[in-house]
Amino acid sequence: MTLKVYDLCGADDLRFSPNCWRTRMALAHKELEAEFEPWHFTEKDKLEFCDAKTVPVLVDGGQAVADSWNIANFLEESYPDNPSLFGGEAGRAVTGFINAWTDSTLHPAMIRCLVPDIYERIHPVDKDYFKASREKRFGMSLDEIRGKQSDFLGGLDTALTPLRTILGAENGIAGEAPAYADYIIFGAFQWARVISPLEIVASDDPIRAWRERMLDLFDGLARGFKSAA
Amino acid sequence: MTLKVYDLCGADDLRFSPNCWRTRMALAHKELEAEFEPWHFTEKDKLEFCDAKTVPVLVDGGQAVADSWNIANFLEESYPDNPSLFGGEAGRAVTGFINAWTDSTLHPAMIRCLVPDIYERIHPVDKDYFKASREKRFGMSLDEIRGKQSDFLGGLDTALTPLRTILGAENGIAGEAPAYADYIIFGAFQWARVISPLEIVASDDPIRAWRERMLDLFDGLARGFKSAA
Repeated sequence: MTLKVYDLCGADDLRFSPNCWRTRMALAHKELEAEFEPWHFTEKDKLEFCDAKTVPVLVDGGQAVADSWNIANFLEESYPDNPSLFGGEAGRAVTGFINAWTDSTLHPAMIRCLVPDIYERIHPVDKDYFKASREKRFGMSLDEIRGKQSDFLGGLDTALTPLRTILGAENGIAGEAPAYADYIIFGAFQWARVISPLEIVASDDPIRAWRERMLDLFDGLARGFKSAA
Repeated sequence: MTLKVYDLCGADDLRFSPNCWRTRMALAHKELEAEFEPWHFTEKDKLEFCDAKTVPVLVDGGQAVADSWNIANFLEESYPDNPSLFGGEAGRAVTGFINAWTDSTLHPAMIRCLVPDIYERIHPVDKDYFKASREKRFGMSLDEIRGKQSDFLGGLDTALTPLRTILGAENGIAGEAPAYADYIIFGAFQWARVISPLEIVASDDPIRAWRERMLDLFDGLARGFKSAA
């Protein structure tokens, strides 16, 4: 039975959600087919069946799982004979720290740089909701946010320090072979790539070379999607 | 042959270096005996034999290894039949991210809170060196740093967010059983505990309960050391 994922969708079919990208890469890693159902911020009613308010939501037969970290754990437990997302129990738990760091540190640093571009490329039905909720969250207008973009890019650069350190020494975040730790952080870079023409890492940054390797995975899965870049 | 570790030592034999604590816990985890040689900041000459300027330095037979991360990797490779520090290759690489995060984010946030207490308890031979180098690094006097302690504690609390998230859901950073990912971060808390009477985490914080579990490991190894707490 084919799996189904509710997937955030912008204007012009742009698939930009960083958390949905974690799930899309995890499914490819697990060699599982899935159907991706486009979803918009304002379609909360479509997720009522599973009490979720955000995507991704995975439906596997009679089970629905919300939240990308729960989905990754569900896939690892439900499909133990497929390639591992974590490489064992210690790898799973430590990857959870990377998940928490990405949510608490990387995403907030990145969204400040991306918000005005997200607004431009979001689906028309979501525009009013997005503008009002984000201006409230940041306490300033979208124009003011754009005006501070160079400050925000400096903050992002600082937040990327541990990532830059590790990618100067390793092929990927999970070492030689990519795993879910890589997909968590890649989701943030694919978010930026799909929704914004901004280049957020310098060409000689080891993060840039790693991102290219991530874009090549699974026959260029992530590279094949429409992007603003 | 007994291993030897050069270990930073304060006044009154206080063993407060967070990076030396990583190595001490790693050796206990690997069930390896080691002799700890007290070392002071100003004894750079004692480390000339291996071109190091900081501790820990591990000496194993004819080999000397500097830097706690290099030491952990050396121990894992040299003693593969002893309990694993990483639980596999993915675990090793992802633990490297935690190492980089601790160095780039947690230690800088914590040292701002601890610097005046470190100065009080550092070995007398190191006092002048420490005061001059730290006042230069922070661009303010030790008294000014102490005056901003409540601001710095707020910054530390924010930096601890991903740790708090993960320890609300897991027994430890490496999951059920402790591993090197735990020791990296524990080193920072043991640093604070040995050198400062300040309580940096609230009694109902999941970080506090995890720290207690770390203090209990290896027959209370870390709890048995003299501390200012």
